[in-house]
Amino acid sequence: MSSTKPSPVSGFPELLPAERFVEQQVLDTLRGVFELHGFAPIETRAVEPMAQLLRKGEIDKEVYILRRLHAEAGESDETAPDTLGLHFDLTVPFARYVLENSGKLDFPFRRYQIQKVWRGERPQEGRYREFTQADIDVVAKDTLAFHYDVEVARVMAEALSALPLPALRLQINNRKLIEGFYTGLGAEDIPAVMRTIDKIDKVPPAMVHTMLVDEAGLKPGQADACLALADIRASDVSFVARVRALGVQHELLDQGLDELATVIAGCSALNSDRFTVEADLRIARGLDYYTGTVFETRMDGFESLGSICSGGRYDSLADDGRTTYPGVGISLGVTRLLTPLFARKKLTASRSVPSVVLVALADEDARENCTLIAQQLRSRGIATEVAPAPQKYGRQIRFAERRGIPYVWFPGGPSDGGSRNESDGAGGADAVKDIRSGDQQEADAASWMPPVADLRPQIVSEPSA
Amino acid sequence: MSSTKPSPVSGFPELLPAERFVEQQVLDTLRGVFELHGFAPIETRAVEPMAQLLRKGEIDKEVYILRRLHAEAGESDETAPDTLGLHFDLTVPFARYVLENSGKLDFPFRRYQIQKVWRGERPQEGRYREFTQADIDVVAKDTLAFHYDVEVARVMAEALSALPLPALRLQINNRKLIEGFYTGLGAEDIPAVMRTIDKIDKVPPAMVHTMLVDEAGLKPGQADACLALADIRASDVSFVARVRALGVQHELLDQGLDELATVIAGCSALNSDRFTVEADLRIARGLDYYTGTVFETRMDGFESLGSICSGGRYDSLADDGRTTYPGVGISLGVTRLLTPLFARKKLTASRSVPSVVLVALADEDARENCTLIAQQLRSRGIATEVAPAPQKYGRQIRFAERRGIPYVWFPGGPSDGGSRNESDGAGGADAVKDIRSGDQQEADAASWMPPVADLRPQIVSEPSA
Repeated sequence: MSSTKPSPVSGFPELLPAERFVEQQVLDTLRGVFELHGFAPIETRAVEPMAQLLRKGEIDKEVYILRRLHAEAGESDETAPDTLGLHFDLTVPFARYVLENSGKLDFPFRRYQIQKVWRGERPQEGRYREFTQADIDVVAKDTLAFHYDVEVARVMAEALSALPLPALRLQINNRKLIEGFYTGLGAEDIPAVMRTIDKIDKVPPAMVHTMLVDEAGLKPGQADACLALADIRASDVSFVARVRALGVQHELLDQGLDELATVIAGCSALNSDRFTVEADLRIARGLDYYTGTVFETRMDGFESLGSICSGGRYDSLADDGRTTYPGVGISLGVTRLLTPLFARKKLTASRSVPSVVLVALADEDARENCTLIAQQLRSRGIATEVAPAPQKYGRQIRFAERRGIPYVWFPGGPSDGGSRNESDGAGGADAVKDIRSGDQQEADAASWMPPVADLRPQIVSEPSA
Repeated sequence: MSSTKPSPVSGFPELLPAERFVEQQVLDTLRGVFELHGFAPIETRAVEPMAQLLRKGEIDKEVYILRRLHAEAGESDETAPDTLGLHFDLTVPFARYVLENSGKLDFPFRRYQIQKVWRGERPQEGRYREFTQADIDVVAKDTLAFHYDVEVARVMAEALSALPLPALRLQINNRKLIEGFYTGLGAEDIPAVMRTIDKIDKVPPAMVHTMLVDEAGLKPGQADACLALADIRASDVSFVARVRALGVQHELLDQGLDELATVIAGCSALNSDRFTVEADLRIARGLDYYTGTVFETRMDGFESLGSICSGGRYDSLADDGRTTYPGVGISLGVTRLLTPLFARKKLTASRSVPSVVLVALADEDARENCTLIAQQLRSRGIATEVAPAPQKYGRQIRFAERRGIPYVWFPGGPSDGGSRNESDGAGGADAVKDIRSGDQQEADAASWMPPVADLRPQIVSEPSA
């Protein structure tokens, strides 16, 4: 069907089978944790009307617009609100799904959603045009209790801790805290202050200070206080006293401090040497419409990727004119996380096929018997394939070796005479060989079991180390 | 983020959570069977260059073309070969993936691929613009042994048999058989005969006969023979004698009969009252480039959907100018299958959430204790959520009932006094209530287990019956 060698399309990463095994196991782990916490699965269609995608006038979004090759005149006019575009996140489609199905869902509604999204961005490491996200959100009608902020942080922290990744740092802040602080300080253009503080990872503090004064209209002392706030970071509630010591008073600040302390205390049990949950008062998620808790996540050694898991609370995730749906959620960039690990050979699988056993084939007439042996093994959950051709057993073993299949099964024993009597199983008991160790033993397809660790391809972390 | 109630987009079906559970379990079953047979997972990007999608001049394909909202001048010209379109099947991308990665794959390469595809077709029942397919294929370099035709039929038959579906009929034919028959009969325009015979399900036999004579240039006796061939159907190899009785001789016919008999005999063990594998000599898959075995599948009571699972053998699935890659595969239309069953209420899940247990909350101060109980249950694989608010226990039970959560857990026993001493577990042993039966028993979160059947939402077939 195809001719001439094709080349990759920039920004659309694809995986080899061993890498896809790793991705599948990561997605299975996420799904398992989310479901244990009662999050229900949904998927939304890949497309939304452009009117939905470009709400709040965000025409800077790099959306892919769809047009049918045989579109009729007037169809798919890019300015028409019902023209379809590919979704660029899972939050906009989820908000639309909640409104569309509000009569059929039970609130508070907790869902997870693991899907691909598309952005027409300039591709670079950690930025792709097609990538998989895994989102959890809780959404309610009218009001959503604050304990859900703690819960989504905990659930995602538990999920992230279960993944075969470098050390992670979940950084949490609260919009009320920073807005209350800036307001209590006397700042007038709060969004300008927030936008400037957001640059703190890219620009030296002295320059941020200058910008706070020149562009955000702060007095030098106020700018000092903002930088002092942004410098506070703690994995326990000690941050509260440090903020208080800055001497700013505001009701919204009190509320934000209280909320953030509750989230941090609620997550403290999840801290380990590979996973840290901390209050980080520079996190603002400037361009998004969060109204309370905000989350970001960094991976050790991969700081240049930016945040690989982000989210927060919306007072209004969706609104149909009569009912407001507040929500809190967090979104994990699965592709953003895994693709650099694959590229740097930090993560792979122990084999490129699911097969645990290759049944060796003495001659083509033995295929039916080999297939029966394979079916016996499969019926007990052991992935098995039959050799493609009756080659010398040495070549069949190399066939298994190249794919990482750990066991070769010899019907009637390991002799490779090629004659009918020896090959069809009449020559003796079956034997199975662990081709990694060379160990060989008599075996019965009705009862033999490999060690559990061999049943599925295993994730191998940092094979280069 | 959203306002005003949105409406569905025609051709892009979405599922409610209970239906998504069913779909997930179907996909898990397929993946499980495919992996047991040694098929490795791959995914390909959603897009291909238009030059790839419209090979062999198939410009009639209803492809969705992509354009970036902020495309630069000259980008995404629909006539440019590198303009991207959404893939409309998984065969074209797989062929491209094989060529692109030929140096990194081991052949024969067996893969499964479960993904969404998009077609700009006019939507109707069984025809969607976005739908999920599940494909298996085996591809080799230069030559691919015939036993793989038997194997892919068996693997897909085993997978289909494991699904909660109405009775299915896997219909198999062979292009060599019908081409050899038509040639041996003296037909000159073989494609015209095949295209006409392909209409046999939609047009009365007498009219097909007329068309065979008028349009395909056959003599009336030849047309009789073609119709007699198309009428042959058998779930065993008895079809061979019936074809022979028609008296046509051709080498290609012999080869096709032999191949089809081998596939039918190899699948005979899979016949059951819910699943039939049969030779059906009217199956031709007219427009596709198959060269031997061809597959179609019909679902009882849903014949109007057409074939829900189709495929066959290609002598050249892919070709890079130096190497030819023959393949054999079969593709299941998961959305085409499930969406009509959901619409006719033939299939649903026993609940809309994964949760097995709702931990009742006596007052807000008890939340931390309830969360610890929930974590104990989760650590043993029991999906659990804590009640959203400390309402009267009757209301909390109704909360569980509405979602289908089978058990409510009462920390410290079922009393609902609301006072601290009773609610925090100090009042007595915990109790768990099966809210379907009303049965209640003392329970310890460290050891209690529900029946296995309650651990995950169960598929409920034909709930309307």
